[in-house]
Amino acid sequence: MPHYTAKVYVTLKPSILDPQGRTVERALSHLEHDNVSGVRIGKYIELNLNGEKAEVEAQLRDITENVLSNPIMEDARWELNEA
Amino acid sequence: MPHYTAKVYVTLKPSILDPQGRTVERALSHLEHDNVSGVRIGKYIELNLNGEKAEVEAQLRDITENVLSNPIMEDARWELNEA
Repeated sequence: MPHYTAKVYVTLKPSILDPQGRTVERALSHLEHDNVSGVRIGKYIELNLNGEKAEVEAQLRDITENVLSNPIMEDARWELNEA
Repeated sequence: MPHYTAKVYVTLKPSILDPQGRTVERALSHLEHDNVSGVRIGKYIELNLNGEKAEVEAQLRDITENVLSNPIMEDARWELNEA
């Protein structure tokens, strides 16, 4: 059965405040990195899946939207590569 | 002054246990996604920088290695694009 590796990127929607990102931005500014702005912190998830491509794609879409992200507050995108 | 957008990916080193990933993997298995393995959870950070390219690259390397990741436990890579 084919093996796939998937990468999932989950980011807060642009309209959602990111206090963690703001804190990192302020810390950077105190470290003389004051040309840095718009710090946004998201999640990066790697996983492996076994199965037929079409099935694995549908499954990964389901996992990304229903388990790994909260579609109310977050955007998510994924990449699938044959391992 | 040129504007750049950077993406930073921080992942646990392969030898470091990832309890959060293990928990997600078990949850997926209970949801009938039992063909999923090797779930690893990392961080994905977006930021904007202003400045000359060579300077911004050196600065981003410094920020990635010294602020956004812990080189003892984590690997980090980054991409820089002109905005």
